[in-house]
Formats: sequence, C-alpha cells, structure tokens
Amino acid sequence: MDFKNKYKIILSEIDRALNNINESEVNILAENIISAGTVFLFGVGRSFLSLQAFCKRLNHLGIKAYCVGDLNEPAITEYDLLIIGSGSGETVCPVQIAKTAKKYSAKVAHIGSNPHSSLRQYTDLFIRIPVKTKLNLPDELNSEQIMSSLFEQALYLLCDSICLMIADEKKLDIKSLWKFHANLE
Amino acid sequence: MDFKNKYKIILSEIDRALNNINESEVNILAENIISAGTVFLFGVGRSFLSLQAFCKRLNHLGIKAYCVGDLNEPAITEYDLLIIGSGSGETVCPVQIAKTAKKYSAKVAHIGSNPHSSLRQYTDLFIRIPVKTKLNLPDELNSEQIMSSLFEQALYLLCDSICLMIADEKKLDIKSLWKFHANLE
Amino acid sequence: MDFKNKYKIILSEIDRALNNINESEVNILAENIISAGTVFLFGVGRSFLSLQAFCKRLNHLGIKAYCVGDLNEPAITEYDLLIIGSGSGETVCPVQIAKTAKKYSAKVAHIGSNPHSSLRQYTDLFIRIPVKTKLNLPDELNSEQIMSSLFEQALYLLCDSICLMIADEKKLDIKSLWKFHANLE
Amino acid sequence: MDFKNKYKIILSEIDRALNNINESEVNILAENIISAGTVFLFGVGRSFLSLQAFCKRLNHLGIKAYCVGDLNEPAITEYDLLIIGSGSGETVCPVQIAKTAKKYSAKVAHIGSNPHSSLRQYTDLFIRIPVKTKLNLPDELNSEQIMSSLFEQALYLLCDSICLMIADEKKLDIKSLWKFHANLE
Repeated sequence: MDFKNKYKIILSEIDRALNNINESEVNILAENIISAGTVFLFGVGRSFLSLQAFCKRLNHLGIKAYCVGDLNEPAITEYDLLIIGSGSGETVCPVQIAKTAKKYSAKVAHIGSNPHSSLRQYTDLFIRIPVKTKLNLPDELNSEQIMSSLFEQALYLLCDSICLMIADEKKLDIKSLWKFHANLE
Repeated sequence: MDFKNKYKIILSEIDRALNNINESEVNILAENIISAGTVFLFGVGRSFLSLQAFCKRLNHLGIKAYCVGDLNEPAITEYDLLIIGSGSGETVCPVQIAKTAKKYSAKVAHIGSNPHSSLRQYTDLFIRIPVKTKLNLPDELNSEQIMSSLFEQALYLLCDSICLMIADEKKLDIKSLWKFHANLE
Repeated sequence: MDFKNKYKIILSEIDRALNNINESEVNILAENIISAGTVFLFGVGRSFLSLQAFCKRLNHLGIKAYCVGDLNEPAITEYDLLIIGSGSGETVCPVQIAKTAKKYSAKVAHIGSNPHSSLRQYTDLFIRIPVKTKLNLPDELNSEQIMSSLFEQALYLLCDSICLMIADEKKLDIKSLWKFHANLE
Repeated sequence: MDFKNKYKIILSEIDRALNNINESEVNILAENIISAGTVFLFGVGRSFLSLQAFCKRLNHLGIKAYCVGDLNEPAITEYDLLIIGSGSGETVCPVQIAKTAKKYSAKVAHIGSNPHSSLRQYTDLFIRIPVKTKLNLPDELNSEQIMSSLFEQALYLLCDSICLMIADEKKLDIKSLWKFHANLE
C-alpha cells in the first residue's frame, strides 16, 4: 500500500479545485457571514459534516452559527444567512430548506458544483467548486477519488480558509480563542 | 398482539415512578434551571435522547440550554448548571463530565436511580427516579419493560413536567411560543 | 410549583391519546416492522427524537433499523419500510423523503395526526394519534401542554408499546437482550 | 481578504503534516481495519467530525463501521477495532472509552499528536500526526491556523487516503460504489 502516493493525489486534486474557485465570490460570502444576524448551515452526508466543522469554528470566532436540525436552532429571519453545501444542488431537503429560507426573506448562499441546479432559483450567492459530483457534468474537474470526496474535502478547506479570512477581518487574536471553546469534554 | 394492554402497563409503571419522585427536589431543580446562566445537559443512549428533547423545549421557554457535544456548545462557567441523566450513575463519560464541570465551579444536578453512585461526589442536587436500571438495586420499582425503558420514559416526562412548571413560573403565554420554534424544516 | 399536578395532566392526556389509536393499525405496523428487510425512520425535531429512541430499541430486538441521516445508513429497497413521524404531515423534508422511498418501491408508514396531509399520497399505512398539532384541526384531542408535546410523548410511548409487542411476537427473553446493548459508553 | 493565500497556507501545512506520518504505521492501521469484525470510531469536537466522515466512507467500502454513540451501535468484542482521534490524547471521554474497549479485549488504535498521553496505556497502535495541539509540545509542527484545525484537517485527509488504500487492497471498482450510498436524502 502507498499512503504517500495517495495523499499526494488528494492534495493535488484539492489544490486544483480550490484554485478554480472565484475569489471575489468567496469574499462576498465572507462579508455576508460577518454581517449576518445568524448563520444557518445545511447539507447532506459528508458535505454536511464539512459544514458542521465550519459551524463549530464560526462560533469560536464570535459568529452566531447553527446547523439546521440543531437542538437549539432558532427561527430564521430576514437578517440571517443560510449556507447550503451541495455539489449537485439537486438534493431534495436542501432545495426545500432554501425555498423555506427565502419565504422568510433570509439570504441564501449555495456552495456547489452545478451552476444550473434546482437550488439556483432560491440562491442569492453561488460559490462554485467545479469538481465532479454524481451528476458527472462536462466542465468539472475530474477526480480519482471515491464518490464526491473531492467536493467534500474542498468544501471543508474552503470553509477553514474563510475562517482565517474572518479572523483577519475581525482582527482576532487567534491564540486567545480557546476561551470560547467547549471545555466539558 | 395487544397494543392497549401494553400501553396501559407502560403508563401505570410511569405513574408509579413519577409518583415516587421527591417533589421538593424537583422544585429545586426547576429553580436552578431558571436561575442558571446556561444549562448543559448530558447522558448516554436513550436517556440522552430524553434530555435532548428537554433541551429543545427549554430553548423555546427562553432558557439557554445546550447538550454536551452540540456544535455551538460554549465553555461552562461558575454561573452554569450541568444536568446529568443516568440511571446507574456509573456510566464513565457522564461521571468524567460532571467532574470537569465541578472543576469549573458549575453546579451539577443528577437525575438517576442509584443514590450511592460514582456521580455522587460531583453532584450538588440528586433527583431520584427510583426504578430498576441495569444495576438491579433492591429498593427500586420493578418493571416489565425492556432494559431501562422505564427510566428513560420517566426522565422524558419528568422533564416535560418541569417545562410546564417553568412556563407557569415565568408566566409565559404558551400559545405565543411558536415564534421561537425553528422554522426551516 | 406543583410537579404532581403537572405530571398527572400529562399522563392523563397521553392515556386519552393512546386510547384513541386504532389498535388494528398498530398491529399492521408491528407486523410490517417484523417482516421488513430494513426499517428506516424519519421525522423532524422532538418527533424525530422519539423515533431515534425507537430505532435504538428496535436494534436491541434484532430488527435492522436506521434513522435517515445516520452515518451508516444503507440504500433503501423494495423490501424495506420507511416510518415517518409527523403530526401535521406537512413538514417538507419528511414529505420529500417519503416520495423518494416510494420511487424505490419501499413501503411507507406515517404516524401522524392529520389524515389529509401532503404525506397521504406517499403513504401505504397511516396510524393516527388524534392530538392537536400546530395545524389545530377540529377533531383532535386538546392539550394544555406546550406546542406539540403531547404528539411527541404519545409517539414515544406508542413506539415503546410496539417494542413490547414485537418482543412477545418474537418470543424474546427480555432479560437476555443486554448483550446487544452498546457497551463502550 | 485573500482566499488564495489562505488556502495555500493550509494546504502546505497539511502537506508537511501528512509527510511526517510514519507510512508503515498507516499500513498497519489499514490492515487492521480490513481484518476487523467491526470498526468503532470515537473522538471529540471537530476531530470526531473527521472520523464521522471516515465512518460513512468505510461503510461504502463494505467495512462495518460505527461511531460511538450511533443509534445502532452494537456491543464491542475481541474481534473489533476502536480508532480514537485525539491530538492531545488527554480528552477524558476518549481515554475512558479506550479503557472500556480494552476491558472487552478489542484492539485500540490512536491517531494523535502526543506520543506520551494518558491514552498510551490502552493503545495497541499509535499513528502520529506530529502537529501542534493545545498541549503545545516542543517537537510538533507549527501552524498559523486556528486552534487544532491542522490536526483535524490532516486527520480527515489521512482517513480519506486510507479509504483509497483499502479500495485498492480490496480491488473495488470505485465507480460501482454508489449502490451502497444512502438514497433517501
């Protein structure tokens, strides 16, 4: 077996994926997160896990963030931002939840691969990670990985990059943030 | 099969269990919840699910409550209350987390069956539901149900009773609470 | 405050709710659970927590059961059963997931209060708990409790009753079931 | 703001971290996963989310894997493997759960940064990702990122690399795996 080969394939695929993201779209998303009353996050499967990691870190940065379904999830309002992570943009629950968010006049951002998806009509801001998903669209970056792994990894690291941007923008002293970290476990 | 017989056995067991809870201990717990800065909840398995249902409702009542492990769980402080639900009081993670909460000078309440458990040394308030758990202690109410079902059911309904007590105490208009309910799903 | 009054109100409301469930519908549901290849469970909020408690216990009884969204959730097939718990039957994700289950020719059971809901068209079996939900339909049992608490409680105890029925039907020795219980926590 | 700078910092830190992992330890872990009866995974916070993503993918690869706390988590036995992800190796619940796993004679692997942790005494196999955690040990790779982000990212991608190694070893046709993927959401 060949761990080093494998991880180098993965890192080079992620590098290519992140390099193909439109930088100004990321800036707008970061600004929207900072100015939102509350940030809601939703996705399905491993994409949702990437957003859950984002949710935890946003709270450490002083951003009020919840994942849809969280026990203490509040009602969404017009001052809030919903971020959907969905490669295909066709998964049924994310589409329905984006539709509901628009009904309450919240802003909706979609991080995905497919720019012509059912989510589009409910989306104010689309950030494209142009990698293959199960739809297998023609202009997407190929991947040797399993299923949508590359999308999920790129989503995870895009979100962590945004955290670093927000920490800069808010001039946070990164070393001081441990005091916001859960301390019971 | 005989649904009506089964549910009547369950309800009569729960009635006996709740009737054996010390009312003044419940009052103290309710007061502690109302006066706490933040309420943290923890348990394992189905007991934890009962507390998760409690956590959701407490938030609807305007009480800041989190389950341990929640994505946006804050740090616990001396102004806060940790409630552990554990029949035996011997489950390892709850004991460790109660110990940690005491290190941060938080108050710890334990809802359980076994009054002489490892949790006792970290507990400020013990509310006893005196029903059989897997320890099979002598002075506990028997149950025909599967495993610790009776403890989990009694815990669920004890918590919902406390919600009604808190709504009274805070003079909340129950019908107006829907506005705090999550609206995305 | 008055714990005993509160819990007696709750128990008497649950008794009335369970007493109004059609016993033969419950029998059919129990039979469907026993004969299903795999049981999938889904709901939203506290109703979903009731089904999660059910999911844990079904596994102890030797029934292969998963909640939708579980990390190890398999693909649904024509041999499987999806159980939705939703008072109103109008929550968007449950409706979409029932629709998807029918696409894969699975059987769909709905435990709810509203018999004329959007879920109806995707439902093979409807078990009615006729209690008030947020729709406030005319022929439903009233409740003094907060939001849909009565539905969630009745759902929890209906499911635990079904577990006892299944244990009888499969002639399981209840005391021997601990060996299937998770032992790490 | 400068997305491209940020992500390049992150990718170069991850590259350095993964490059410092001992390849033969990874091989042993991959072999242990393939030969285990059941794989159990546990951690806390974002490290646990990385392992949850791993858990989902292992199931797609035909490996029976559960996270500790999962609704359908079975009992652990001597044929099974517990993998703990914990940078410091000092978090209380992971240590307790590793101890419990040894009581049942299961094998325990620890992926962490600190080689001299409390977990060591319960660990059969230690895979070191030598990056700074909150313990701030001297021989660890530095990071400009927030809290333990680098450990969590490296853990995520180490696990996805192992998935590719397992797919090779089991000669799986990656394109055919979608049939094991959940299809309800």
